Amino acid sequence: MMRTRPLKVALLGCGVVGSEVARIMTTHADDLAARIGAPVELAGVAVRRPSRVREGIDPSLVTTDATALVKRGDIDVVVEVIGGIEPARTLITTAFEHGASVVSANKALLAQDGAALHAAAEEHDTDLYYEAAVAGAIPLIRPLRESLAGDKINRVMGIVNGTTNFILDKMDSTGAGYQEALDEATALGYAEADPTADVEGFDAAAKAAILAGIAFHSRVRLDDVYREGMTEVTAADFASAKNMGCTIKLLAICERAADGESVTARVHPAMIPLTHPLASVRGAYNAVFVESDAAGQLMFYGPGAGGAPTASAVLGDLVAVCRNRLAGATGPGESAYAALPVSPMGEVVTRYHISLDVADKPGVLAQVATVFAEHGVSIDTVRQQGKDGEASLVVVTHRASDASLSGTVEALRNLDTVRGVASIMRVEGE
Amino acid sequence: MMRTRPLKVALLGCGVVGSEVARIMTTHADDLAARIGAPVELAGVAVRRPSRVREGIDPSLVTTDATALVKRGDIDVVVEVIGGIEPARTLITTAFEHGASVVSANKALLAQDGAALHAAAEEHDTDLYYEAAVAGAIPLIRPLRESLAGDKINRVMGIVNGTTNFILDKMDSTGAGYQEALDEATALGYAEADPTADVEGFDAAAKAAILAGIAFHSRVRLDDVYREGMTEVTAADFASAKNMGCTIKLLAICERAADGESVTARVHPAMIPLTHPLASVRGAYNAVFVESDAAGQLMFYGPGAGGAPTASAVLGDLVAVCRNRLAGATGPGESAYAALPVSPMGEVVTRYHISLDVADKPGVLAQVATVFAEHGVSIDTVRQQGKDGEASLVVVTHRASDASLSGTVEALRNLDTVRGVASIMRVEGE
Repeated sequence: MMRTRPLKVALLGCGVVGSEVARIMTTHADDLAARIGAPVELAGVAVRRPSRVREGIDPSLVTTDATALVKRGDIDVVVEVIGGIEPARTLITTAFEHGASVVSANKALLAQDGAALHAAAEEHDTDLYYEAAVAGAIPLIRPLRESLAGDKINRVMGIVNGTTNFILDKMDSTGAGYQEALDEATALGYAEADPTADVEGFDAAAKAAILAGIAFHSRVRLDDVYREGMTEVTAADFASAKNMGCTIKLLAICERAADGESVTARVHPAMIPLTHPLASVRGAYNAVFVESDAAGQLMFYGPGAGGAPTASAVLGDLVAVCRNRLAGATGPGESAYAALPVSPMGEVVTRYHISLDVADKPGVLAQVATVFAEHGVSIDTVRQQGKDGEASLVVVTHRASDASLSGTVEALRNLDTVRGVASIMRVEGE
Repeated sequence: MMRTRPLKVALLGCGVVGSEVARIMTTHADDLAARIGAPVELAGVAVRRPSRVREGIDPSLVTTDATALVKRGDIDVVVEVIGGIEPARTLITTAFEHGASVVSANKALLAQDGAALHAAAEEHDTDLYYEAAVAGAIPLIRPLRESLAGDKINRVMGIVNGTTNFILDKMDSTGAGYQEALDEATALGYAEADPTADVEGFDAAAKAAILAGIAFHSRVRLDDVYREGMTEVTAADFASAKNMGCTIKLLAICERAADGESVTARVHPAMIPLTHPLASVRGAYNAVFVESDAAGQLMFYGPGAGGAPTASAVLGDLVAVCRNRLAGATGPGESAYAALPVSPMGEVVTRYHISLDVADKPGVLAQVATVFAEHGVSIDTVRQQGKDGEASLVVVTHRASDASLSGTVEALRNLDTVRGVASIMRVEGE
């Protein structure tokens, strides 16, 4: 049974993603109507530069006044794909106040103000959906908050930034250095002119905050996420990783502590075994590995960015939100009842791969091993290599807290026989 | 805001899956209540053998009268994990008639009678959810029917049976023959005493029917699915596959025809390149690869069976159905508006790997090549090997229809110089 009055959609932003959303809404209008149970109509498109030609979009729908558009009062769903904190935040809040539900792809905003936005949505009995905010087209938010709603998630570990995965994959497969791989990513359009948000891990950290919040039914903000970029990963690190049967990925890792009473969220480069499903995620693809009590190990894989993939996620949410409106209901809102605190990085427990430049003389290994032991960090393997009076020691530890490891490294730096700490990298995914 | 009157759940079946559902409902009662917005109460458990001890389940809840349980009238959700067609079908229908929503893990029933069950659910304004029916814990039904609701799915290709994947993986990694690998699977509990449903592809075919129906918004029944088991895959086939940089998997493949006007669904062993994400799915794991217009290539990976993983999927559905009831709404029902016809196997277009035993004399290759050409099947590569007066020809084709290939093979069998067709296997996943 089809309702004939269309649901009205306001589109905020008409760039790479927005134009794809508009295109699919037009070309697949019949399918969308059949799936929703009512037609959907693009009622307005707010842009910054109205003069730019937008193929397939009725020019009379285009406006620069986004505020007036979300205030119209007849809008059922606002699709926000402009990104950034402001004016997106105010526009979304205004949309809720005027009775519209919101579909957003805005990871930065959700990571910073998710709780307030969810509260605003709930106050006005509207929906806030944001599948596109994490890992593009990959269904992830919905599986975590709906499919796994009867399970207990213990860890979410993912490659959630395509740019950095492209760069690291290139370094791994060609032996290139970071700068060379970045240059290629830039030339091919995988990296932006200013790649800071990607390579320094800010983008992944926002996604980690969102994923951790959903996975653990707790509030996790961007500031709670430990963040290390991948600009200092070297070809030598990849060689070390290969020696261990590993590769290096920039991972977003959200974990429940062993006692279940707290959680952690972090983004940093890490070695993972080649046998781990995440190790074979190539190019700009994303993948997220989830471990839960009952389901065990799950992985979700796909394109993490791009206009069409992100539009797919936006439109899936649009269909859901429209169905909810027709049913006079709303979907699941924020679930933060568990209210688990976020522990600092020092409490994270993992393994480490440490390369030291040391003096090539007897007793050095014993000295180094003593420092590890004094800090309660148990050594798994040590590899010693001599070269021209200098030597290198590669130590791989058992699981230890980040604080213990930091203490160990500080003490190592103070040893006369240790010339330098060449690299420290976490080892994940056993 | 928590409602205090609990939602009442009737559990039909208390075997491997049912007992896990009951256990998690008890041990995670507070979490489930918080996520649903009301407590859930196990109101009755229907079993065949009430005398069996069931740890953690109040004996007063146990009954052998499943019909009376679903007719009680105060049941909100019936969880059906008994499997098979009857009495499951009648019990589910009766549950709908008495106002209960249903969560089922019953692939055979859904594949055979999905349309009728969906209609019954809709008639009584109740929900029918069945995430656990396909690929155990892997969120798949919900992503397909919700996350990708704004996209156009063109292909679903998956490893959806853990038993056969375990056997094939064992053959691949150890060089074992089928029987040896099956024996090991049986000894380890991965294969049942009668493995027919798994190894002959019946289980995978039921899942293919369900997936195709959802992916293409059309009705696809079990009878519509072409099915070939994997009992005739040999160590020699794996050797051939390795030569091509491939492995062999039992795949369920649901495709939209190139013209978009029809669909196909099939289950058979196939060679896939080692570089394909499905190739690295090991042991009893499942994975489903989805290709759509906008999202591109997605993959969902995880345990495809087992008590706890299946219970995870059941409980995710239970939470969703309970939320729907509290909201006075129902979730998405059957979506079969596209009503695309299912084409027969002959119209499937794919590539083939054919091994022929031929006479070792001049002109044989020309003769064979002529037969392929006459049937419109274009050859990609041919490899010729002589051995003691006999020779073998391995032909890999370009894409051709299954009907053309069948015609080719029939004509090849009639050639004097062809002693036998040693194997024919489809090649997928380019």
